[in-house]
Amino acid sequence: MEQAQKVTRHFQEELEQLKARLLEMGGLAEERVRLSVKGLVERDHELIDSVLVGDQPINRLHIEIDNRCFTLLALRQPMAADLRTIVSAVKINTDLERVGDLAVNIAEAARRYASHAPVKKLLDIPRMAGIAQSMLRDALDAFVRRDIALAQQVLNEDDKLDSLKTQIFRELLTYMLQDPATIEPALDLILVSRHLERIGDHATNVAEDVIFIVSARDVRHHSADIGQS
Amino acid sequence: MEQAQKVTRHFQEELEQLKARLLEMGGLAEERVRLSVKGLVERDHELIDSVLVGDQPINRLHIEIDNRCFTLLALRQPMAADLRTIVSAVKINTDLERVGDLAVNIAEAARRYASHAPVKKLLDIPRMAGIAQSMLRDALDAFVRRDIALAQQVLNEDDKLDSLKTQIFRELLTYMLQDPATIEPALDLILVSRHLERIGDHATNVAEDVIFIVSARDVRHHSADIGQS
Repeated sequence: MEQAQKVTRHFQEELEQLKARLLEMGGLAEERVRLSVKGLVERDHELIDSVLVGDQPINRLHIEIDNRCFTLLALRQPMAADLRTIVSAVKINTDLERVGDLAVNIAEAARRYASHAPVKKLLDIPRMAGIAQSMLRDALDAFVRRDIALAQQVLNEDDKLDSLKTQIFRELLTYMLQDPATIEPALDLILVSRHLERIGDHATNVAEDVIFIVSARDVRHHSADIGQS
Repeated sequence: MEQAQKVTRHFQEELEQLKARLLEMGGLAEERVRLSVKGLVERDHELIDSVLVGDQPINRLHIEIDNRCFTLLALRQPMAADLRTIVSAVKINTDLERVGDLAVNIAEAARRYASHAPVKKLLDIPRMAGIAQSMLRDALDAFVRRDIALAQQVLNEDDKLDSLKTQIFRELLTYMLQDPATIEPALDLILVSRHLERIGDHATNVAEDVIFIVSARDVRHHSADIGQS
């Protein structure tokens, strides 16, 4: 029994480490999104280039986290909520890697955008970026704390991103129709708004995973209660 | 021993069923991509609407496949290659559901596009769709047959999609610069080409999973060989 407790404690420690690594990965991905949009707004070539070449730390973490998940699944053979948590961690890991890729896509658009005259003062794009970043942060916090209310909040935020995206599209379309010289740079801004929308989609995926983990656990708890009564 | 063989055989049957369901899901997703692009090219409102409302079968399969995966993981506690196969199935299932969503996005763009005069005869977009569909089919075949060469072939196809996307973009940009009346519909064609590129990305994800499953197995075989020699 003492041995079993030690194994369980060790497993819980490994699970905590896994979550800490996912938070670290989320922090890196979020920071890269922030820098790519800062580079776009400030037309800062050096900053843009730093995002374009700086994806090794995320890629390394991606592999490390995947390995941790498979080791935990193979050696610990977890059940129920722990199983769902670890499989979700594999999926969340993929989502965060894609967010890192999208930061590169934003930086690529930023580099092209900086080679044209600016179309307009960028306000809504940084606003979208802010929302997408906090969705990502909240979704990961919800995962770590199994906080279903916070996860639900992330899902609700997605509408804000969607309406900002539509607003940006309409506004840029007006510019393009009035002045063909804005067509190319405006297209890049439209692409950036789509990339930010997809970052929000990844945060939404994470939030949905959290709800899946927690509500499936509740269902099992419920049937366990019936068995014991 | 006979009991253990029966359990193993039963597990293998369940694994085959899981693969069959994933193929079915892939077939549905691919068909929806085909129909959405057909609707776009033929400006067929009825066809477009059928894609917009027809995502229930995929969504049902998505949930069923997820349940199968978690049941297999929890009850069978598979090791090594089987473990990787099932966790990859969870990820592939997500990829296929997203492909279904992208078919809806294409149908939405098609509906808007059909409300304007056509910009041009669409040749490259059906070509992109054809490549994306066959990438998806090949990636799933590679998964089912653990065919690493076929998976590698899928990864190579991705370059074709990328260069078609760039070509489409340049051509449409020319139209937009020449005639502002084409700006709105051309934007929708650009979006469709991006959606098709992302479908290719999902096929690529599946192909990468196949390589991960098979090569991880090879690595383990390799160390087992060393242990036995």
